[in-house]
Amino acid sequence: MTMDIQAYMNQVGQQARAASRQLVVATTEQKNTALLAMAQALVDSTDTLLAENAKDMDAGREKGLDAALLDRLALDKGRVEGMAEGLRQIASLTDPVGEITDLRYRPSGIQVGKMRVPLGVVGIIYESRPNVTADAAALCLKSGNAAVLRGGSEAFYSNQAIAACVRQGLEKAGLDVNAVQVLETPDRAAVSSMITQPEYIDVIVPRGGKGLIERISSEARVPVIKHLDGICHVYIDDEADESKAVNIVVNAKTHRYGVCNAMETLLVAESRAEQVLPKIASIYAEKGVEMRACPKASALIDTALPATDEDWATEYLAPIVSIKVVADVNEAMDHIAQFSSGHTESIVTESITTSRRFLAQVDSSSVMVNASTRFADGFEYGLGAEIGISTDKFHARGPVGLEGLTSQKYIVLGDGHIRQ
Amino acid sequence: MTMDIQAYMNQVGQQARAASRQLVVATTEQKNTALLAMAQALVDSTDTLLAENAKDMDAGREKGLDAALLDRLALDKGRVEGMAEGLRQIASLTDPVGEITDLRYRPSGIQVGKMRVPLGVVGIIYESRPNVTADAAALCLKSGNAAVLRGGSEAFYSNQAIAACVRQGLEKAGLDVNAVQVLETPDRAAVSSMITQPEYIDVIVPRGGKGLIERISSEARVPVIKHLDGICHVYIDDEADESKAVNIVVNAKTHRYGVCNAMETLLVAESRAEQVLPKIASIYAEKGVEMRACPKASALIDTALPATDEDWATEYLAPIVSIKVVADVNEAMDHIAQFSSGHTESIVTESITTSRRFLAQVDSSSVMVNASTRFADGFEYGLGAEIGISTDKFHARGPVGLEGLTSQKYIVLGDGHIRQ
Repeated sequence: MTMDIQAYMNQVGQQARAASRQLVVATTEQKNTALLAMAQALVDSTDTLLAENAKDMDAGREKGLDAALLDRLALDKGRVEGMAEGLRQIASLTDPVGEITDLRYRPSGIQVGKMRVPLGVVGIIYESRPNVTADAAALCLKSGNAAVLRGGSEAFYSNQAIAACVRQGLEKAGLDVNAVQVLETPDRAAVSSMITQPEYIDVIVPRGGKGLIERISSEARVPVIKHLDGICHVYIDDEADESKAVNIVVNAKTHRYGVCNAMETLLVAESRAEQVLPKIASIYAEKGVEMRACPKASALIDTALPATDEDWATEYLAPIVSIKVVADVNEAMDHIAQFSSGHTESIVTESITTSRRFLAQVDSSSVMVNASTRFADGFEYGLGAEIGISTDKFHARGPVGLEGLTSQKYIVLGDGHIRQ
Repeated sequence: MTMDIQAYMNQVGQQARAASRQLVVATTEQKNTALLAMAQALVDSTDTLLAENAKDMDAGREKGLDAALLDRLALDKGRVEGMAEGLRQIASLTDPVGEITDLRYRPSGIQVGKMRVPLGVVGIIYESRPNVTADAAALCLKSGNAAVLRGGSEAFYSNQAIAACVRQGLEKAGLDVNAVQVLETPDRAAVSSMITQPEYIDVIVPRGGKGLIERISSEARVPVIKHLDGICHVYIDDEADESKAVNIVVNAKTHRYGVCNAMETLLVAESRAEQVLPKIASIYAEKGVEMRACPKASALIDTALPATDEDWATEYLAPIVSIKVVADVNEAMDHIAQFSSGHTESIVTESITTSRRFLAQVDSSSVMVNASTRFADGFEYGLGAEIGISTDKFHARGPVGLEGLTSQKYIVLGDGHIRQ
């Protein structure tokens, strides 16, 4: 790491720490004022944003970025309005900071409760989509955390332009402009600094491909909220309702392909395979989904390729599905325990007994009954927005919204009480 | 690390992981049966426990352990009964596993809620007190976690004898005896293995001196629930009630000296110093507490020594107190922000306005109004027992009981719902 980057990152870290102290006592009104002003600034700056984004797009085309990446990078009027709308929605969410719960008298006479408090400084490291800059800034601000944002170098100009709007919003509300800092260097050494300095940053949220997240997790010296893979399963139980089963597995696989909550493996109880698999297979075939199946499933699906052991452990993020016939819910849960990435699993069943077992035993961040895995999402869960999805168990699990960016401290109220 | 230890630790890890899968679905009744049977086994094995403990005590005397260490190591009939009573208390606590909260309908028609689940495998690394073996085993078991326990080598024979009672209890309840494993080797390489293998252990709780905890934290590759220091403050505000103030600061300093929730620094508002400090000082002097004071406080206390900057940053764990006169609550909070270890701070005031600010702004795991810092404790807070105290903000903060050893997963209940 060059000395300049280190000095710059120390300055960023100190500014973030100082801003986080001010944010703890920022009023809900101040934070909402800032969010609404940021939204307005984004809309008012649409021309500038598009011009800066065009620089990134030109550079991206020159670098030969593929069409999908360029699409994620691109801004247009609609996407700018979408970012602004996202900020307004976060302004409308309940402020989690200062919430007091479980305040109860103890036999000693003191009252003990918990108060929700910000984590401090949140570092976000993300890839090309520039809207993450606005989203992440807003979620951190609303939850009372200072943010240090490091976007992909391909979106450098777009992110700086968005950062200017964020700063305007903070200024308008009388908040420290360092409450949100978007790094002004694309140097990779900045990332190493962010993830190894617990004195400046309390938690890192990486958003991007598996490679980015693995690298960050293995080098980080601060806690990381992350998910690596989304190998999600749907199990069609002996007692599944057929039409619910077909609808759910079609939706879970084909609603969108490149998302972490898409189903990658379909498990079917042996007693139902002959009835449901041909129907499901014909819909998949129609939609161009490649099927890779175990021998028993292959016998029921003409067009299936044989599945290898690797298939069960693969997140396709593509129109490919692996299909396995299992004896019962026990074999389904064993398969899930072995191959799931702990993201989301769903059972289709009419049996309350089987559903209770599945809910209790399956060790994933979201466990569903008779619902598509595609629902595993902060908006769908009512969190308002999410900063990411956690497949870890420590601190936060599943979609992480405002609450996942906070902690709880104990408060004790007495009247001169002393320990006996 | 020798190959033997590594192979042994891999075996322990695999057994713990397997046991943790069984524990997730262990019923509350099974867990309570095991806890009560462990308690009975401890009482029934008192003679064996005392004989094994005598081996440790002899070895300890030979090694020249000091009197305080030997006292922590010693077992007698009363302490064995105390361990058993601790297990019975944990049996009587509400089972946190499977608790469903916040289950609400969403606009899409699905119900989304959270279910409390075990973390998985908890590793505890502790120093000489053998009762931690029983406590930690019980807290992990009740919260559905498998435990890997590594006690101090001085307590090796005592811990193995306690482990045998724990195993008896598990067997009696039909649970996997590997649900609690007490390492059968005093080799230090085992600790390195525990803290660097996230595939076997989900979280580490170190219990011991600052040196142990610092070493573990800096080398760990798994999350650590810890506190390093307890530099706790009491601030006597302008609007403090005099008798509450005197009672609280005497209790917070002198109730017990060697504990992390004892007050180390007393802060006094300038407007009250002349009135309260001489009274407090005379009680401290009577109790043999050495006072190290800022110049303004020294002017009011004949017997005070001058405090150095180092004093403000020191956890004495001894009959020593540092005393500082501050202008007001703002200077008090600035001092706390600079020197506190984030454990526990208390304000003595009759002002609701000042208390609200102090509660909101002070960034410690426990923040108190008109109460002694000595209350910062799992039993006093109603957690039933604590596995440790966390001064981190991530995951758990303050005394960590059963809930701190769990996580929450999302559950989704539908009726064939798919994403539109």
